[in-house]
Amino acid sequence: MIESALAEDEGRAPRPADLRRIGIDPDFWYPVAQSRSVPPNKVIAASFAGRRMAVFRSASGAVAALEDRCAHRQVPLSMGVVEGETLRCCYHAWAYRGNGRISQIPYLTRETERPPRGVTAYPTRESGGLVFVFPGDPAKAATTPLPSFPQLRSGTHKVMRFSRTVHCHYSFMHENLLDMNHQFLHRGVLGKIRPDLLGYESGPGFVEARYRFTSDGGRKDRGAGLLSAEGIGGRESPDVLTIRTGYPYQTLELVPDGETETAFSLWVAYVPVDAAQRTCHVQGMLMIRKPRFAAALTLAWPFMRRFTERVFAEDRMAVEAEQRAWDEQGEDRNNEIFPLILELREVLRTSGVPIDPAASPCGGAAGSGTACGTVVPS
Amino acid sequence: MIESALAEDEGRAPRPADLRRIGIDPDFWYPVAQSRSVPPNKVIAASFAGRRMAVFRSASGAVAALEDRCAHRQVPLSMGVVEGETLRCCYHAWAYRGNGRISQIPYLTRETERPPRGVTAYPTRESGGLVFVFPGDPAKAATTPLPSFPQLRSGTHKVMRFSRTVHCHYSFMHENLLDMNHQFLHRGVLGKIRPDLLGYESGPGFVEARYRFTSDGGRKDRGAGLLSAEGIGGRESPDVLTIRTGYPYQTLELVPDGETETAFSLWVAYVPVDAAQRTCHVQGMLMIRKPRFAAALTLAWPFMRRFTERVFAEDRMAVEAEQRAWDEQGEDRNNEIFPLILELREVLRTSGVPIDPAASPCGGAAGSGTACGTVVPS
Amino acid sequence: MIESALAEDEGRAPRPADLRRIGIDPDFWYPVAQSRSVPPNKVIAASFAGRRMAVFRSASGAVAALEDRCAHRQVPLSMGVVEGETLRCCYHAWAYRGNGRISQIPYLTRETERPPRGVTAYPTRESGGLVFVFPGDPAKAATTPLPSFPQLRSGTHKVMRFSRTVHCHYSFMHENLLDMNHQFLHRGVLGKIRPDLLGYESGPGFVEARYRFTSDGGRKDRGAGLLSAEGIGGRESPDVLTIRTGYPYQTLELVPDGETETAFSLWVAYVPVDAAQRTCHVQGMLMIRKPRFAAALTLAWPFMRRFTERVFAEDRMAVEAEQRAWDEQGEDRNNEIFPLILELREVLRTSGVPIDPAASPCGGAAGSGTACGTVVPS
Repeated sequence: MIESALAEDEGRAPRPADLRRIGIDPDFWYPVAQSRSVPPNKVIAASFAGRRMAVFRSASGAVAALEDRCAHRQVPLSMGVVEGETLRCCYHAWAYRGNGRISQIPYLTRETERPPRGVTAYPTRESGGLVFVFPGDPAKAATTPLPSFPQLRSGTHKVMRFSRTVHCHYSFMHENLLDMNHQFLHRGVLGKIRPDLLGYESGPGFVEARYRFTSDGGRKDRGAGLLSAEGIGGRESPDVLTIRTGYPYQTLELVPDGETETAFSLWVAYVPVDAAQRTCHVQGMLMIRKPRFAAALTLAWPFMRRFTERVFAEDRMAVEAEQRAWDEQGEDRNNEIFPLILELREVLRTSGVPIDPAASPCGGAAGSGTACGTVVPS
Repeated sequence: MIESALAEDEGRAPRPADLRRIGIDPDFWYPVAQSRSVPPNKVIAASFAGRRMAVFRSASGAVAALEDRCAHRQVPLSMGVVEGETLRCCYHAWAYRGNGRISQIPYLTRETERPPRGVTAYPTRESGGLVFVFPGDPAKAATTPLPSFPQLRSGTHKVMRFSRTVHCHYSFMHENLLDMNHQFLHRGVLGKIRPDLLGYESGPGFVEARYRFTSDGGRKDRGAGLLSAEGIGGRESPDVLTIRTGYPYQTLELVPDGETETAFSLWVAYVPVDAAQRTCHVQGMLMIRKPRFAAALTLAWPFMRRFTERVFAEDRMAVEAEQRAWDEQGEDRNNEIFPLILELREVLRTSGVPIDPAASPCGGAAGSGTACGTVVPS
Repeated sequence: MIESALAEDEGRAPRPADLRRIGIDPDFWYPVAQSRSVPPNKVIAASFAGRRMAVFRSASGAVAALEDRCAHRQVPLSMGVVEGETLRCCYHAWAYRGNGRISQIPYLTRETERPPRGVTAYPTRESGGLVFVFPGDPAKAATTPLPSFPQLRSGTHKVMRFSRTVHCHYSFMHENLLDMNHQFLHRGVLGKIRPDLLGYESGPGFVEARYRFTSDGGRKDRGAGLLSAEGIGGRESPDVLTIRTGYPYQTLELVPDGETETAFSLWVAYVPVDAAQRTCHVQGMLMIRKPRFAAALTLAWPFMRRFTERVFAEDRMAVEAEQRAWDEQGEDRNNEIFPLILELREVLRTSGVPIDPAASPCGGAAGSGTACGTVVPS
C-alpha cells in the first residue's frame, strides 16, 4: 500500500535505528514537577521513563525524590505522609529519610526478619521554579550543568509556565518546534505566515535554526499579535526566530526586527513518562521581557495565555496523530525531506540510549506481565 | 469444561479453517460511507479491514479515497482540508490529487530531499447513495460489478438507511440473518413467530433460503405489523421471506402471501473495519414499495424506523456476545446443527482470504507494536 | 534501581514460587452470589477464576450453576430466560435443565445435525444466605464441608453482608487482614491504635493469630466505637482479636476484654474472578451479637455500616496498589519481615494450585487471543 512512498528509501543502506525507539539519555537533569506543587509536608507522584518517583518536601523545606515503592510491599510512597524530615508509607507505616534509608519500622522486634535498607533516592535540585532530578548515574550529577534562568532573577521578565502530558515520543516534540513549515497547522490562530529558513548550524548535541516570519495576511488571533513584537515592542514584523535543540532541552528566542535583545524566549523540556517513552510530560517556561509600560503586559497576559494554549493544542493534535501512526505501523515510515530536521534526527539519535524492547507502552514502568500487554505462548 | 460439548466433533477430520479467521475478499466493491456524509469540499475518515482511508469530495464534486497517511509524516490526511481538486495535509501542508499523487509541497527547494510520489488511491464509485471503494487489485475494479439499485431510481420505493458499527466478525452477521430460528431473540418486538424453512439452494458464492413466517400470537410491536403485508398491503400473513448471501452482500425480500411482487427488500454489506476483522461497519438499505396510498407509508415511517432499530439492537447484542466468546475461547467452538448455516459457512470460508495472524484486534490497522497489544519476550 | 532492596534476598535459595501466580484450590465450596440476588425464575452471571457461570433459580426454587455458554453458539446462558425448571438461551431458544443437559431445541428435525448433549453443571448449595458452587472435581463435592453459620439460625446475631469486587490476587486480602500492623492505614477512621501480637499458631491449611488492640488516642470514627465492646457491651478496651485463615476462608473474632463470648465475628471468602486471578470478589458476613437492648444495635447499624465501608475502602486502595505494583514489576518483590505473614504465605502457597500461565488478566476467561492481549510474532 505504501510501496510507492517507500521506494525512495531503497538506495540508502544500512537503515539507521528507529528514532522512536531511542530513549532519552538519563544522564541529564530533568524537571519532574513545579516547585510550587510540592509545598512543605507534601508528597506527589512523578515519573521518568517508567521509573516512578515520590517527590516530597520535608517540614524544613528540603526536596527529595525517592523510588515510588515501599521496600516492604511495593505500595507507592507517594500515597504516604510526610512526617518532619521523613516520608512514611501509608500501609504499615515504614518511614524513609530523604536519602532513601529506612528510619523506622514501628513493629520491628527481635522476632521480625532483617528489613531491607531502603529505596533508591535520586539527586534532586531546584532551579527556575522547577524540581529537577538526575535519573542517571548519580556520580555524574554534580558535574552535569543544571539549567539556569538568570532572566527570572533579574526581574526584567515575566514567566508563563506550562505543564502538560502529551502522548508521543519526545522526538516528535523537537521536530515539531524546529520545523516551522508546520505553520499551516496554526493558520486559524496565526493567520497566513510564511516562514523562511535563514540558516542553521549543528554540532555535538545541538541544532540551531534561524527563521524569518513574514505575515501573508489572513485571520490572526489577538494574542499572536501581542506575543510578536508589534504588541509588546510597538514595532512591525518581520521578526527573527531562533530555535535550538540543546540536548535534551529546547529553546526558542524571538528578536524583533531591528532590535538586538530578545522580546521573549521559551525554554522547554520533554520528560518521558513511561518506560516505552511513548508519552512525555512537557515542562515549559515562556519568559517575556517586560515592556516600558509593564501594565500593558499584565493586560495582555490572558490573551497571550489563550493564544499559547490554542497553538499548543494544535501541536498536540498533530504529534499525537504521528505517535498513533507509529504505533499502528510498528516503525518509523516518515519520508523526511527537510535537511534541518534530518540533522536534528541524527542529533537525537546519537545523543540517546536504546529503549528496553520489553518496555510496556501502557503502564508507567518497565517489566513484563503488565495488565495491558499480555504475553501468551503462540 | 466443554469436553462434553466438543465430543460430537471428534468424528470429523481434518477440521476446517476457523471461519472467524477468514478475511473478506478485497476484490469486491465495498461501501465505506454514505454519499451525503461527504459533501463537496469535505474529507472524512473511513476504513476497510485496517486500511485507513481519507474519503474526500473536491470542489467539482469528484469523490476520491486515499490512504489515510500523509507520505511525509504519516499524519491522517482525513485531518486535512480540501482545496479545489486537492486534499492538503493539516500539518506541513503537502497537497494531494485524487489519484494520490503529490501536487504541491510549499517549502520544496533545491536543498530539500527528493519527496515521495504520493500515497495509494483506491478506485471509488457511487451507487444508491453510497460511496464504494475497491480495496483489492485495482486491475479487477473495472470488471467487478458495482451493486445497483434500480428500485431507487424508479420512484416506486422509499429507502431507510442504516449505518452502524458492530463489534463482531462479518460472518456472525451473515449467520444471524440467514438463520431465522433466532426469532426467539425478538419475541418482545415481533411476538411469537414460527419460522418454517421452505427450502434453500446454494452455489459458488451464494446461499439462498426461503422461509414462511406464521404468527403464534403474543405481544407484537406496531412497527412489525406495518412492515409486514397487513399494514402496507392490507392483507393477512403468512408471508414468504427470501434471504440470500450473494457474496459479499446479503439481501432479504418479503413477498406477501398471494402476491408476486416484493413488499420490501433489504440490501446490506458488512465492511470489516480493523485488520483482525473483529469489527464491521454495517451499511444497509431497507427499500419499501410505496403503497397505493403513499401517505400511509409516511405516517408509518417513524414506527417502522423504531421497530427496525429495536430488532437491530437485539441482533447486535447477540452477535457481539458471540464475538466476545470467540475472543475468550480463542477459536470457534460452535456446534452448528442447521444444514443451511453449515452451507453458508462453507460459502464464506471458500470465498474469503486468510487474515494476517499478526493483525491487531485493537487498532484499525495491521502491524505489530500497537499500543494495545505488546509483545515482550517470554 | 532496587538492587539495594533485593540484596537481602541473595542468601535464600531456591526461591519459592511467586505467591501471586498461585491459583486458589478449586476443590472447595465458593460463594458466587447472594441467595437473595437469585429469586425464582431469575438467572444471573457469576464467575470463578475465569469460568463463567449462569446461576439460575427455577420456578420451584432449585438453584443451579451452568457453564455460561450455550453449547450451540457460545452465547452466555445468563442472557437467557428461566422457563419452569429450564434455562432457555436468548438466541435460538435452546433449553437446558439444571444438570446441564439440553431439554429442547425448537427446530430440531431429521435434517439437522446431531446436537451436543449439553454444558457443564457445577454442584451448587446454599448456606448462610449465599449460593456456593464447587468448581473442582465434582466427586469431591459431597465430602467437602460446606461452611455453616449456626449463629444466623439461633437468632442471637444480626448480619451485615458485603459483596465487592477488588482488583487484586486473593492472597493480598489474606495478608491485609492478618497483618494488623497496617492500622496506620485506618488512622483517620480508627484513631491511633497499637496492635500487639499476642501469639499465633499454624498448621496444614491454617494460620491463626491473636492481637490485643490498645487505643493510643487520636480521632476515631463513631462507628468504630460502636463496633468495639464499649459501644455494644458498655465496657472499656483493650479487646482481643482472633484472626484466622482457614483455607480458603478467613475469619475474625472479637472477644471484649474480660468476656469469653465473641462480640462480633467476620466470615469472608475471596473468590477469584478472572483466569489470571488478579481480581477477586469478596463475599463477607459480619455477624454481631445482639446486646441486651437490641434496639441499640438497630440504632447503631448505619454508623457501623459507614465505618466498615470506610475501612474497606482504605484496604481496597492499599491492596489494589500492591497488585498494580506486581503487574508492573512482573513478579513479587515484597520484602516481608513479619513471621506471621511469612507463615501465612507458606500456607497459601502450599494449599493452592498453579495458575495457567496463558491466563489473560483482562478477560474473564482463560485462552489466548483475547481482545486485550494480542500476540504478534516478534
